[in-house]
Amino acid sequence: MDVDIPEVLAEMRACFAEYKRALTGNDVAVLQRLFRRDPRTLRYGPAENLLGWDAIAAFRAGRSPVGLERSLENTVITTYGRDFATANTEFLRAGRRGRQSQTWVRFPDDGWRIVAAHVSLMP
Amino acid sequence: MDVDIPEVLAEMRACFAEYKRALTGNDVAVLQRLFRRDPRTLRYGPAENLLGWDAIAAFRAGRSPVGLERSLENTVITTYGRDFATANTEFLRAGRRGRQSQTWVRFPDDGWRIVAAHVSLMP
Repeated sequence: MDVDIPEVLAEMRACFAEYKRALTGNDVAVLQRLFRRDPRTLRYGPAENLLGWDAIAAFRAGRSPVGLERSLENTVITTYGRDFATANTEFLRAGRRGRQSQTWVRFPDDGWRIVAAHVSLMP
Repeated sequence: MDVDIPEVLAEMRACFAEYKRALTGNDVAVLQRLFRRDPRTLRYGPAENLLGWDAIAAFRAGRSPVGLERSLENTVITTYGRDFATANTEFLRAGRRGRQSQTWVRFPDDGWRIVAAHVSLMP
């Protein structure tokens, strides 16, 4: 199990950056694409539990595009082998501190996709 | 990428059950063992961000063993290939609802280990 193979880590950093751009720009199509289209995909948000790609896509489509900007701290991106990665970061948004966790898998049919995500605010 | 190979899924369900027993029984040694001993391992808890195995281990060692019992709902355990898995669940503990996310990797040297975890309470 090779951890942080340089070219794999570079790919994952690019995916993570693409996701962040889409998130802060509220690019719903990209956000929907980057989650694996599967009923097992899930996203726990700050105040909602979204089970399955359909639920995540519906949430994105209905979300307010206001105030999505954030700054990141202590970002940790790690790859395991060539097809698996985790991306975790703390963030500051609208004066609140939070954490964002993503698990990414590279699928032969459509590339790197998020299969599980968890976002929460500090109490 | 084979998802949910039955024998791999069975292994991961056993790991998940072992973790839950250790958590509710406050078996610190098992909890420490099940996290990958690596500075890149991390755990976002309900009110703390623990970066690195050492920080996680210290937190476990200093934790109150009272009131750790919980019930699980909507548990989703999914395996990707033979070496990667995610385990996500909602839980009820002491009247509060929360979510627990884990990413597991199987390492040749020491088996299935958690490399990233995120636990949060619903607002």
